[in-house]
Amino acid sequence: MTSSQEWVEIARDIAAKLAVDAVERDRAHETPYEEVRLLKDSGLVTLLGPAEHGGGGQTWETAYRVIREVARGDGSIGQLLGYHYLWAWAVRLVGTEAQIAAVEELYTKDKLFFGGAVNPRDSDLTITEDGDELVYSGHKSFSTGSKVSDLTVLEGVLEGTGDHIFAIVPSRQEDIVFHDDWDNIGQRLTESGSVTIKNVRVPWASAAGYVDRKFQPLTYNTLNVPAIQLVFTNFYLGIAQGALDTALAYTRDHTRAWPYGGDDKASAGEEWYILEGYGDLQAKLWAVEALVDRAGAEISEVLHAPREQLTPQRRGELAVLIAAAKQRASDTGLEVGTKIFELTGARASAAKYGLDRFWRNLRTHSLHDPVAYKRREVGAYALLGQLPEPTWYT
Amino acid sequence: MTSSQEWVEIARDIAAKLAVDAVERDRAHETPYEEVRLLKDSGLVTLLGPAEHGGGGQTWETAYRVIREVARGDGSIGQLLGYHYLWAWAVRLVGTEAQIAAVEELYTKDKLFFGGAVNPRDSDLTITEDGDELVYSGHKSFSTGSKVSDLTVLEGVLEGTGDHIFAIVPSRQEDIVFHDDWDNIGQRLTESGSVTIKNVRVPWASAAGYVDRKFQPLTYNTLNVPAIQLVFTNFYLGIAQGALDTALAYTRDHTRAWPYGGDDKASAGEEWYILEGYGDLQAKLWAVEALVDRAGAEISEVLHAPREQLTPQRRGELAVLIAAAKQRASDTGLEVGTKIFELTGARASAAKYGLDRFWRNLRTHSLHDPVAYKRREVGAYALLGQLPEPTWYT
Amino acid sequence: MTSSQEWVEIARDIAAKLAVDAVERDRAHETPYEEVRLLKDSGLVTLLGPAEHGGGGQTWETAYRVIREVARGDGSIGQLLGYHYLWAWAVRLVGTEAQIAAVEELYTKDKLFFGGAVNPRDSDLTITEDGDELVYSGHKSFSTGSKVSDLTVLEGVLEGTGDHIFAIVPSRQEDIVFHDDWDNIGQRLTESGSVTIKNVRVPWASAAGYVDRKFQPLTYNTLNVPAIQLVFTNFYLGIAQGALDTALAYTRDHTRAWPYGGDDKASAGEEWYILEGYGDLQAKLWAVEALVDRAGAEISEVLHAPREQLTPQRRGELAVLIAAAKQRASDTGLEVGTKIFELTGARASAAKYGLDRFWRNLRTHSLHDPVAYKRREVGAYALLGQLPEPTWYT
Amino acid sequence: MTSSQEWVEIARDIAAKLAVDAVERDRAHETPYEEVRLLKDSGLVTLLGPAEHGGGGQTWETAYRVIREVARGDGSIGQLLGYHYLWAWAVRLVGTEAQIAAVEELYTKDKLFFGGAVNPRDSDLTITEDGDELVYSGHKSFSTGSKVSDLTVLEGVLEGTGDHIFAIVPSRQEDIVFHDDWDNIGQRLTESGSVTIKNVRVPWASAAGYVDRKFQPLTYNTLNVPAIQLVFTNFYLGIAQGALDTALAYTRDHTRAWPYGGDDKASAGEEWYILEGYGDLQAKLWAVEALVDRAGAEISEVLHAPREQLTPQRRGELAVLIAAAKQRASDTGLEVGTKIFELTGARASAAKYGLDRFWRNLRTHSLHDPVAYKRREVGAYALLGQLPEPTWYT
Repeated sequence: MTSSQEWVEIARDIAAKLAVDAVERDRAHETPYEEVRLLKDSGLVTLLGPAEHGGGGQTWETAYRVIREVARGDGSIGQLLGYHYLWAWAVRLVGTEAQIAAVEELYTKDKLFFGGAVNPRDSDLTITEDGDELVYSGHKSFSTGSKVSDLTVLEGVLEGTGDHIFAIVPSRQEDIVFHDDWDNIGQRLTESGSVTIKNVRVPWASAAGYVDRKFQPLTYNTLNVPAIQLVFTNFYLGIAQGALDTALAYTRDHTRAWPYGGDDKASAGEEWYILEGYGDLQAKLWAVEALVDRAGAEISEVLHAPREQLTPQRRGELAVLIAAAKQRASDTGLEVGTKIFELTGARASAAKYGLDRFWRNLRTHSLHDPVAYKRREVGAYALLGQLPEPTWYT
Repeated sequence: MTSSQEWVEIARDIAAKLAVDAVERDRAHETPYEEVRLLKDSGLVTLLGPAEHGGGGQTWETAYRVIREVARGDGSIGQLLGYHYLWAWAVRLVGTEAQIAAVEELYTKDKLFFGGAVNPRDSDLTITEDGDELVYSGHKSFSTGSKVSDLTVLEGVLEGTGDHIFAIVPSRQEDIVFHDDWDNIGQRLTESGSVTIKNVRVPWASAAGYVDRKFQPLTYNTLNVPAIQLVFTNFYLGIAQGALDTALAYTRDHTRAWPYGGDDKASAGEEWYILEGYGDLQAKLWAVEALVDRAGAEISEVLHAPREQLTPQRRGELAVLIAAAKQRASDTGLEVGTKIFELTGARASAAKYGLDRFWRNLRTHSLHDPVAYKRREVGAYALLGQLPEPTWYT
Repeated sequence: MTSSQEWVEIARDIAAKLAVDAVERDRAHETPYEEVRLLKDSGLVTLLGPAEHGGGGQTWETAYRVIREVARGDGSIGQLLGYHYLWAWAVRLVGTEAQIAAVEELYTKDKLFFGGAVNPRDSDLTITEDGDELVYSGHKSFSTGSKVSDLTVLEGVLEGTGDHIFAIVPSRQEDIVFHDDWDNIGQRLTESGSVTIKNVRVPWASAAGYVDRKFQPLTYNTLNVPAIQLVFTNFYLGIAQGALDTALAYTRDHTRAWPYGGDDKASAGEEWYILEGYGDLQAKLWAVEALVDRAGAEISEVLHAPREQLTPQRRGELAVLIAAAKQRASDTGLEVGTKIFELTGARASAAKYGLDRFWRNLRTHSLHDPVAYKRREVGAYALLGQLPEPTWYT
Repeated sequence: MTSSQEWVEIARDIAAKLAVDAVERDRAHETPYEEVRLLKDSGLVTLLGPAEHGGGGQTWETAYRVIREVARGDGSIGQLLGYHYLWAWAVRLVGTEAQIAAVEELYTKDKLFFGGAVNPRDSDLTITEDGDELVYSGHKSFSTGSKVSDLTVLEGVLEGTGDHIFAIVPSRQEDIVFHDDWDNIGQRLTESGSVTIKNVRVPWASAAGYVDRKFQPLTYNTLNVPAIQLVFTNFYLGIAQGALDTALAYTRDHTRAWPYGGDDKASAGEEWYILEGYGDLQAKLWAVEALVDRAGAEISEVLHAPREQLTPQRRGELAVLIAAAKQRASDTGLEVGTKIFELTGARASAAKYGLDRFWRNLRTHSLHDPVAYKRREVGAYALLGQLPEPTWYT
């Protein structure tokens, strides 16, 4: 039986392995089959899976820490793992008890990896009914991880209704076509490119949460947004911590003291401004970490409690707390990603060190939804006691 | 039996009372006898005292939260209470078991309030021996709370040695003369003025921690600095939270929407920039709070564990963590104290609202020791693994 | 003939005199009759007045620098002088040639000082016609400087119309009643309290710019807002420079090197963090100064050019440039007012040094209109080429 | 005769051309022969050259603006041009009248482009005497632009002395070997790689400023550092302005309004936070620009005045002013380079837009020498009146 702390250690080992050639992989921009294999072999992929099927049986609190640790070594892989956890949990968010049991057994036993084609600002995946089957067709601009996954979560709207229906399908099938067009400045290995879904058939019985073609909504269903936003927050924090780790190591190994304009010093470790600069960044990251851990503990409690218990008030408070954590992680991480260069020196800008990848990774994903609106969300709660209405982004 | 959470509620009630006329008291600059009375009557003064003598029997974790809550209503009173807790604990830091038992019984039974004449950058309190007695004489530039206290902690250096000796003496005696010269821009009610000690006599037996005129040093003795630095941090955070609370209430009650330069809005609560601004400040304060709570939980565990268990490594790590928390509380609090005005509007600068007191309070005490050195301290740990050497400030 | 540079030197001398007891005056909160006298005797009050009547015959470019220099010694007096310049210029903004000649001769010959009762967000000063006279009645919440002035600019709306009419009246008359209710946290000597106007009569012929009871509007009339906003900006900058001057002098004279946590240094002038800190603030202030000077040169050219030449486009560009300068002065000045304490040390928080007055002064007046809207104004220009519509604030 | 403003327009045209494929060139990482050709053809290369030989006969004030404009289109090319200007001016800094006349005629007539092998922190280029010749040998880690240049400025130390000697040699010769090893995260087209100098011979008569093998030092010789530091500052500012230009255009063309969490808006141009965000960045850049222009005007005056007139005091003041401008350009530019993404939205992170190049370019070169020391330099002047000692970096 592996404890939470042991899982974090496993994640650290993986991160250390990933860090070795993270710069090369970022440049090569290859599909991370190997890296997903590493996640499977380590057991991290089934961390949340039921112990009776060989899963880790851990809580989300641990999962969040694991995502963060992996992102410390490679932000893209941290993102892939985090999204996988949420896709794997999607059946718990909306499915029936039978569906939950089936999906968790399926993915845990075979260590299957999840991707998704669920981009809320495109509503161009439509579903038609064909007897006992649902037929998904359309195009999604972004489908993180789907290409390297075994299972893909589809989301679409049933023709003639406003009903969103989720279903899980095998990722490797002719009717799911990946366009390999994810070429962004950061998080380059997340395979977040577009995908075409050509009449992919799913039995009505697999429509998550539908019983007799009807859905019984619960507040718990809407936890997907706070849960994934905290996934984001954790890999942002991990990226920022990775930046600081890497810079500290560089300074220790390479940075020379500056000989002009002050007393002579023997080493960079005696440089007043370097010590102060690292202290500032470290203190800021610790504050972010404490807030992210607090949010993780709180939402984890709710995610693992009976679904019916969740009230809209509690859901809203969690969303606000996570919105706060996210903006702190993003703002602070960008500052860390920028300032580390002033503490490592000019030669650290050589492309071989790839020290810009942290800023690029964080900058890219932190645009997912506007940080100004996250601030507004927290402000509306502080000033007016308003809770965010559940949408795809709040 | 009152729970930790109930003590926090009691502190909140006190804070609410203090907030009512905090502006007037700040202006009047009177000695806060009434306010200390309030602290005694509520039981907060004996929060850490042994339950068998009528104390609260609580931990430091609770004490830190209580300090913060009180500071939310009045920063000066939060500081007085926090200093009191540390002076009351001084005997545990350095005293013998017998001394601890005696002092805790004494102050708990009679709800006595502590002050101190312990300002490290003045080393002008000298001790001479006179038979079985120690005689303290000299001058201290700052002696927070001593004037409103029942007991004062003296600290001096024994003539002809480098030995610092602490002792506890009654505050109200002819030979302790207060100069009532604390007139600073903030924390105006802390009675932190100078004091002259004229041959105050203490039995050798009361010299804290001395057995047969010898002191057996422990790492635990040096916890005074991290413990008091976290006291500071908590009342900084409380002051900042008080600033935000007060501004939010002002905006709800008084601020008008701005009619020039954008769509018309009915109320300040619909103002985009006000919502964003409050969200930014609230998120930042939550991050600070999470870090301060983490530090509080960690040092509390150590403060209540057997003294011999504390290693220099652990002491150093705590000092670094607290140095980080302190800089975040101070920097963030000053930002909050400045920015709230932009969210309340021009009329909130009327002196009657006293909205500047938060900035003045925080600005004043946060100069206790330079924040740049606190950053350096954290940086030296991050970069070099260095722990701060125990001094009066680190 | 005094040159522009000589006028700046005169302003510096006045500032030096004002600085001597600025702290005491801030506390005493007395009406600044003496200080206005100083401005008159020095010739600064008539800096913009025609040389043939004994005025300085200077441009606004010089006036802005003079305001700034005076504010460096005392922010309130800098504000009074700046407002005076604009009130004295009001007749040029809207008056006829004959009115201009009359008013400029009047105030220049007798060195008269202007105040105003022109607060745009109160529209409660009404004008009724009574034969050849206009009768002003009502109440203004803020009337900066009027109490210490010789002449007051009134502004009201003519009953039954939407016409705003300006007129100049003697300040000391029974029917203008000052309520002496300006008690704010900063700019305490500006006598900005409320005023009641009880049937103050003005000949129709004095209605600024009205010919045969009709007004011929020009874009030039709307320069009052950019011109006064740049007055604000200059005294903000002066206050910030005064803060830096005062702190630098304090550090040189009093601050001790910090003995804990780094190599021993002999003096504060060898402290790494103090040098860096001052360099940061000085560089920021120089950047603000360069922008403020640029804006001053540009608007000065326009203010002294023939009135008909001014296009709405040019007026709008100036308003945007000044909006930018204002936000930089305000943000940077608040940072300077806060950070100087970290460079002077704990004892500099003693009330006798009054080092908080810079922050309080700047914080108070910079709330005049929301800085977020000034940012929006610049953004709308950068993004959309939009010019601010002339209002009382843009 | 082309006016200063016309040269700036020419530079703008070049920048517009360069901007078209700047992203592709950044990726392709090819040697910018074409781009240097463009600079030559436009006449910008000989902007400072004497009019009688076909040069522009302009001042440095114009040169600085031109560098900035070119950098707005492509930071690397702006840097190459700026370095060229300084290398071309090197003979004026240290040469004899005859040398100045010869070099200026030479490079102006044939529109020759300069590079340099002058990296001060490597002192590994040595000079030996061989009769009437000097022989340069060694290695330089960085030699910006040399590979695409016609003439290279060499700098070495004469064996057995401490004398630094500059000389100008043809860039394309067998004995100058470029290692093509400049592969950094930014300013990728500057050809700043290492170079080996294998016994390159120069007549003693060409040793800049040496007469009878003796050098007569002037303060003017030490203007190279402030002059080049202001070159840096100008291309930093240009890069930052280019970032803002590009983002504004993207927002206008592509950014969609955000539909979650506030009133519906039709377009990004109505988004409150986008308008505010651009206003903030624009205002900050204008302040930097004003300071950079001020520094340019001041140093230009000195660079074009008789060399003997320059005092150490004036040189020092200029160095400090430029140190201030540089830190403002660098800090503000990095903020702009980071924040623009929040105003353009998630899709702007696609690699094809290359919106990260501004941050990468600025981050790379702004490490040339530590910004913290630049702050210290300004602080030492503000606090102590200290002027920086002329070194390779101050």
